[in-house]
Amino acid sequence: MRIPDKLLSFIKEEKSFFISTHINPDGDALGSALALSLALESLGKKTVLHNRDRVPELYRFLPAHEKFTMSLPGNRQPLILLDCNDPGRAGLNGFVIPSSAVIDHHETVSDFGDIRWIEPKAAATGIMVYYLIKKLELKITQDMATNLYTAIAVDSGTFRYSNTSSELLRVCAELIDSGADPASIALTLYETWSVRRFRLLIEVLNTLEIVDDIAVTFATKEMFTATGAAPEDTEHFSNFPRMMEDIEVSAFFREIDGAAWKVSLRSKGGVDVARIAERFQGGGHRNAAGYMIKAAMKTAKEKLLKAIREDKRST
Amino acid sequence: MRIPDKLLSFIKEEKSFFISTHINPDGDALGSALALSLALESLGKKTVLHNRDRVPELYRFLPAHEKFTMSLPGNRQPLILLDCNDPGRAGLNGFVIPSSAVIDHHETVSDFGDIRWIEPKAAATGIMVYYLIKKLELKITQDMATNLYTAIAVDSGTFRYSNTSSELLRVCAELIDSGADPASIALTLYETWSVRRFRLLIEVLNTLEIVDDIAVTFATKEMFTATGAAPEDTEHFSNFPRMMEDIEVSAFFREIDGAAWKVSLRSKGGVDVARIAERFQGGGHRNAAGYMIKAAMKTAKEKLLKAIREDKRST
Repeated sequence: MRIPDKLLSFIKEEKSFFISTHINPDGDALGSALALSLALESLGKKTVLHNRDRVPELYRFLPAHEKFTMSLPGNRQPLILLDCNDPGRAGLNGFVIPSSAVIDHHETVSDFGDIRWIEPKAAATGIMVYYLIKKLELKITQDMATNLYTAIAVDSGTFRYSNTSSELLRVCAELIDSGADPASIALTLYETWSVRRFRLLIEVLNTLEIVDDIAVTFATKEMFTATGAAPEDTEHFSNFPRMMEDIEVSAFFREIDGAAWKVSLRSKGGVDVARIAERFQGGGHRNAAGYMIKAAMKTAKEKLLKAIREDKRST
Repeated sequence: MRIPDKLLSFIKEEKSFFISTHINPDGDALGSALALSLALESLGKKTVLHNRDRVPELYRFLPAHEKFTMSLPGNRQPLILLDCNDPGRAGLNGFVIPSSAVIDHHETVSDFGDIRWIEPKAAATGIMVYYLIKKLELKITQDMATNLYTAIAVDSGTFRYSNTSSELLRVCAELIDSGADPASIALTLYETWSVRRFRLLIEVLNTLEIVDDIAVTFATKEMFTATGAAPEDTEHFSNFPRMMEDIEVSAFFREIDGAAWKVSLRSKGGVDVARIAERFQGGGHRNAAGYMIKAAMKTAKEKLLKAIREDKRST
């Protein structure tokens, strides 16, 4: 990974930075932004850390997470945009800045940025920030290490996804040596479900219906009431039926107001679920997409199965 | 980790080995035994690989797994006992052998073995076999790497348990460089469930009972019949209730012949479940242990809850 010289000069020359990352931030966005902020401050710089949304409860264990502000600063500082490459993705449309640098591992969606460091092959923005900190010859503190380890762990499914490499493991080994606690981070990421959420998962799994290679599950409003779980508790529910070898698409229906359903689709890659979701005015990626539909559960399900069948026939 | 000189001489001097590992073998037992067998054969030795039980379907992706035999050989060869330290655990009671070596990372339960290499602090027997192969200056082939990576991945929860260390990540990085495919191994371990197995999991989760910080689930013989799942399909079932923040110990009871139960215990570290299992003549590690009990489910459960309460009071 080659860090642009212009980025290094920018960091060395400027005295204060406005660091922002994408809305609905995940572990990579938050962890890499926090580690960069801590690193720049150890270099004597001032930083303002911004996110349009508040830090999700799950990530409030990240050291220094309380540095994030949701409000835009009055004075204009150089921007570092992390883990996205379009200011709109960070809720910064129309926000005037004197200069800007982008550090991101996503495919380019805009040409924004005076300085652009984009590495689509990097497993996480966290690993890019790690190399940047090393290049700046800064000490990786325990707080930086915990933030970077979390960033990389989240984006690699703790070393289960295809972006896992020997390089990634070696970097994470160094982060452990710098103080990151791998078990405690994994425990926080994966084992802090409420009993209510787990009870709702069981209710949802009991609705499992398998049609060909499609798994359908759903959560009714009554199930939320009965278990006391909240709508956001259903995050990741659609991943569970993917555990089955013969399942290609997992569809999870969550009942919302107005006799409608929010549908989450997960695919193992054989079916492009973004294309399915678009038929219902939704969207997403090839492996993960979603849409809303106003219909009875039975009708909603049949429409989805029909759409997937049609899509398979056309490809 | 210091490998006993006697073990190195034993391996260099003997020409053929009988390698055996514990019944109900898991990924660490199978992967470390296979890697050791492949390594010894690359050294010009002959090996017979034994397990009393057949290789579970889940692990039939392991290179050379077809080398395992369930029958005991007629001729007596030197034994290497892996991932357990009592021949009874491998179904070898009464089997006469000329000499023996033990390689294991479990706490000692017997003093069996002419040569004993026991490292209770090692995350997996796989990492011990890795160091042994390095010490013997053998090339780690792709097949050895896949077996060792799987062994370590299974026993560290793919780097989520508290035995995960920077050393473990560095060893696994080297195994990736030697040809182990981390994403493909993770996919096989976690996303190749049969529909039958998934249906059994749902049945088991429906039995969930929470008492204080203990989660109890069970699988009856009827549930196996109704779903068509096999006993070995329940591997990892005890991990699911651990997802709940307030759960310290997860206990999963599987009904076996003779009105008895096989109990799997998982802890987040606050309770030493190996010590609990020992009260019932079982064993294991601080975070994962097991035992058998002959009793009705209700009685078996109450005995366990009582044992955990007593253990908490005494520490």
